[in-house]
Amino acid sequence: MNLPATFVAELAALLRAEGWRTDEASRRAHGEDDSRQFALPDAVAFPQNREQVAAIVRACRAHRVPIVARGAGTGTTAAAVPFLGGLVVSFARMNRILAIQPQDRCAVVEPGVLNGDLQQALASHGLFWPPDPSSAERCTVGGNLATNAGGPRAVKYGATRDNVLGLVAVTGSGEIIRCGGPWSKNATGYDLTHLLIGSEGTLGLIVEATVRLHPKPPIQAGLRALYRDAASATAAIGRLMAQPQIPATLEFMDARAIELLRRNGSVIPAAGAMLLVEADGDEDTLPLALSALGAAAEGEGMISLDVAMDGLARDRLWAARRALSPALRTIAPGKINEDVVVPVSRIPELVAFTEALSAKVELPIVVFGHAGNGNLHVNILYHPDDTDETARAQTALPRLFDTVLALGGTLSGEHGIGVAKRDFMTQAFDPATLAAMRAIKAALDPDGILNPGKVLPPA
Amino acid sequence: MNLPATFVAELAALLRAEGWRTDEASRRAHGEDDSRQFALPDAVAFPQNREQVAAIVRACRAHRVPIVARGAGTGTTAAAVPFLGGLVVSFARMNRILAIQPQDRCAVVEPGVLNGDLQQALASHGLFWPPDPSSAERCTVGGNLATNAGGPRAVKYGATRDNVLGLVAVTGSGEIIRCGGPWSKNATGYDLTHLLIGSEGTLGLIVEATVRLHPKPPIQAGLRALYRDAASATAAIGRLMAQPQIPATLEFMDARAIELLRRNGSVIPAAGAMLLVEADGDEDTLPLALSALGAAAEGEGMISLDVAMDGLARDRLWAARRALSPALRTIAPGKINEDVVVPVSRIPELVAFTEALSAKVELPIVVFGHAGNGNLHVNILYHPDDTDETARAQTALPRLFDTVLALGGTLSGEHGIGVAKRDFMTQAFDPATLAAMRAIKAALDPDGILNPGKVLPPA
Repeated sequence: MNLPATFVAELAALLRAEGWRTDEASRRAHGEDDSRQFALPDAVAFPQNREQVAAIVRACRAHRVPIVARGAGTGTTAAAVPFLGGLVVSFARMNRILAIQPQDRCAVVEPGVLNGDLQQALASHGLFWPPDPSSAERCTVGGNLATNAGGPRAVKYGATRDNVLGLVAVTGSGEIIRCGGPWSKNATGYDLTHLLIGSEGTLGLIVEATVRLHPKPPIQAGLRALYRDAASATAAIGRLMAQPQIPATLEFMDARAIELLRRNGSVIPAAGAMLLVEADGDEDTLPLALSALGAAAEGEGMISLDVAMDGLARDRLWAARRALSPALRTIAPGKINEDVVVPVSRIPELVAFTEALSAKVELPIVVFGHAGNGNLHVNILYHPDDTDETARAQTALPRLFDTVLALGGTLSGEHGIGVAKRDFMTQAFDPATLAAMRAIKAALDPDGILNPGKVLPPA
Repeated sequence: MNLPATFVAELAALLRAEGWRTDEASRRAHGEDDSRQFALPDAVAFPQNREQVAAIVRACRAHRVPIVARGAGTGTTAAAVPFLGGLVVSFARMNRILAIQPQDRCAVVEPGVLNGDLQQALASHGLFWPPDPSSAERCTVGGNLATNAGGPRAVKYGATRDNVLGLVAVTGSGEIIRCGGPWSKNATGYDLTHLLIGSEGTLGLIVEATVRLHPKPPIQAGLRALYRDAASATAAIGRLMAQPQIPATLEFMDARAIELLRRNGSVIPAAGAMLLVEADGDEDTLPLALSALGAAAEGEGMISLDVAMDGLARDRLWAARRALSPALRTIAPGKINEDVVVPVSRIPELVAFTEALSAKVELPIVVFGHAGNGNLHVNILYHPDDTDETARAQTALPRLFDTVLALGGTLSGEHGIGVAKRDFMTQAFDPATLAAMRAIKAALDPDGILNPGKVLPPA
């Protein structure tokens, strides 16, 4: 689109040179995310405070200019790609930690602060914020809020939505709203806080968040349990989740993932499935947690159980997990990574299905992820320059989602919908539920200027 | 109002004799809650399934008949009182536990099941659902959902909103919507689940809930710590909340509460404030938790610290807490009990203010409650037949809310707004935030038939 001249003049005056860019290089640098999709915005704004954000939204509303909010662009669903042009609002200059309140177990932050920077600031208070996506060093808290980001720690400490107490946001009307606050209990009015989290910038632009903190346990240790097959590992997941010592992480890898790691030099015995289980605590409690988790991991089909105490052994254990994503590229350069969710009890069926699907579409499929949440990453691997492989990978996707939904699961556990999964929303929700979501969208963004075309499929 | 004859005929045919009542006794029995306010509905419906609920809402919509959803009527804010007449929808016949899924750590229930009955059914699986309001034996899960009910256990395990994974509900359009499901992680579309929880029947009627369960620790033990003054006790609350062993409960009582218990025969030494702290765990972990909590409770101003292991000693400890509410009636028959919330760090200021307020209005004010959440019950005591005392009690209320809001707190932590606190919502929220809430109300209940006049003040 072409931005109206009065609009450009208004925002250039509001944001000055340091907050307003229309040059090609700046626009180009704000047109893609980790989905590798790209579209050029017409301008990029770098507001410095909430009043500027509100003024930007009001100007966009007056001129019907689409707005795409942007953190660090590490999303995987193209939610931050401005397909309709318009304005990208970057929160790069709203990156302050405004307060850390240990007694209230919360911190108040602007959306542009990096997740990793927040964690570092909290560490000196002996606190942490649970969301730990693999991009933690690069992604922003605002992006975590937009996608309801998770990570391995979510099994014990919850994902982003479980760890936010309050928000300040600008709705599509250009109004600043405040919901929640520095308290862990609230029965006062409607819960706008949780509604805005995970809405991917389609209901409001978050300009401040009060996040829930947890005391950081001083030490961790890990268990590596190998199983004959996925069914034995899943039975162990069930046992681990049904006892009181909640694991700090509970990661699953299927046979193909193990095979891949072995081929890439990891010293892991051959096995049908693997669980990486972490415990956290102090010198007194950690041994108890480890022994409870070890006991629950043991059972029919277990091949071996290794304990890795904090330090080198634990680092080695996690190095294998971290090596997995890069190793996938050694199989094929193309990867469709779907973060589907099924009830924990249905994981064996999902894993069995992916094996059958792999045979049917004749493409490698590697499954691993956050088993304690039933949130598995299903990676379909293909060569993008091979049109036949690409087509087969694309046909695998609807089959996967069909099965996930049939198993009582859902499309996304931590990446969000964006445009990548948008057209499957009509399968995940019935028309009445989608209509309710659309009504809420219209209530908070009456002119549809906030990240149009994302999350909700066209009516 | 007079119900239209066609409406009555339609619902009588739909619900048959066992599900439809217009006799005075039935109407009278469904017109009040624990606020002691009363209004007569024109009819009472007892649906047996979600389709009946949807048909009821559609009929009410067609004839603009107000609907008030009702659990057990244990709410304290008159949210369940049908001030405009119309229809009360009782969930007494939708009281089944549909599934208990230990591996998925969830249960699927109808809204009419009693909280206590659910807990009993879960106990044999070694599981529990955290919400534990004092009315647990009598109140329904649906009522807990409507008010975002809490209780002492919320400090460790969260309140209702933190412990629901999915819902099926009927909106004001008479449509059945489904959100969330048996998973603990979800980044798929808008979070209608948390939005509906705590909306007090104004956005939808919940017809099914998938609730999050936790393994029940086999044993508990309590600590009773007495302090010189409220400030010392609050400093201890801060220490208790800043260390990793989260207490299972953390209850505060002010000097007046202790004095009252002593006058009523409890064997408690005189003190300026008291904390009741619980730990839960197993035989190995409980002693460690107790010792960490004991260490955190200790500090400047502590007078004594007693440990009560599971069994008789612990029962005695909690008997004192339970005796408190009835004992309040021995001071005066009238009680305004406000469940306000402030940041934990501001509790000393709130307690000091209530002491000054008590002196100013010349009425006893007793403060106790869920200190770990900053959620204190401020009880203003008066004689309702003394018009002067009643007037003074009423003037105390806006002063209390003013101070709570000035301390960065909010109106309600677990009782909700109903009509009792509705007119203070304009102080708790700015006009833009209230407008956003009203827009959401209009989106899900376009004709305003769901519990009209509750939660949101007139525009």
